[in-house]
Amino acid sequence: MQDSASDFHLDLRLEGDTLPVGNLFLSRVLLMNDTRYPWVIAVPRRAGLIEIIDLSEDEREQFWREVDILARCVKSMHPHAKLNVGALGNVVKQLHFHIVARHTADAAWPGPVWGHGARTPYDADGGARLVAQFQKALRHELT
Amino acid sequence: MQDSASDFHLDLRLEGDTLPVGNLFLSRVLLMNDTRYPWVIAVPRRAGLIEIIDLSEDEREQFWREVDILARCVKSMHPHAKLNVGALGNVVKQLHFHIVARHTADAAWPGPVWGHGARTPYDADGGARLVAQFQKALRHELT
Repeated sequence: MQDSASDFHLDLRLEGDTLPVGNLFLSRVLLMNDTRYPWVIAVPRRAGLIEIIDLSEDEREQFWREVDILARCVKSMHPHAKLNVGALGNVVKQLHFHIVARHTADAAWPGPVWGHGARTPYDADGGARLVAQFQKALRHELT
Repeated sequence: MQDSASDFHLDLRLEGDTLPVGNLFLSRVLLMNDTRYPWVIAVPRRAGLIEIIDLSEDEREQFWREVDILARCVKSMHPHAKLNVGALGNVVKQLHFHIVARHTADAAWPGPVWGHGARTPYDADGGARLVAQFQKALRHELT
């Protein structure tokens, strides 16, 4: 698996809308900075990707493994949630994959979260706490 | 990979909204009966599944391979489309995965297709033709 991560730059809109969590082997992991939903995003650190099928076969296998790890992680933190997962890319072209914990009382239920209303950011303390919690859950999932 | 397909029954709403294409090793393949978007659905033929992470590790690998095959197939038929892929399950609980070819002129662009407006079914001839085209493209992708 060739590492072309040096050519990778996170899309500016993704960077602005999220809080950084860290890197998995292939993916940059982000938390959507939106108090309405627990929402994780995985961005393969390869330049120029648009579709999942643009990944090489090895990278695609790794990517799906990382999606599964993140999904288990979100589910462990929100055991009663319905997971919504997917990649759209209609607005932000850079390949990124969403894993969202949905609840029947959330703002967009039962519709999709994408394009629904305005993001409501965490305050600095809340954001930092959330990132730390998620990093802890992710370390647990990876061991 | 244990075959518990005998316990599998397609959700009635999925059955009513789609045209049957056939079975891959793990998944039943359906075409959404909606002229607004080229739209394929994969349903793992295992009873009682809600989340992708409910699949065993072997089945999950197979499932992602089949999703990738279907995505390549849709892209081959619609080379200028942006793929939208994902699993929600907020309305229909049975695990099913969407692969949709999106165009900037389509009814919901750039928003998601899920929950957007009413389905407009194909006439019988159009539906049969579409299924035959997709089966041909899928056979090509599998060989």
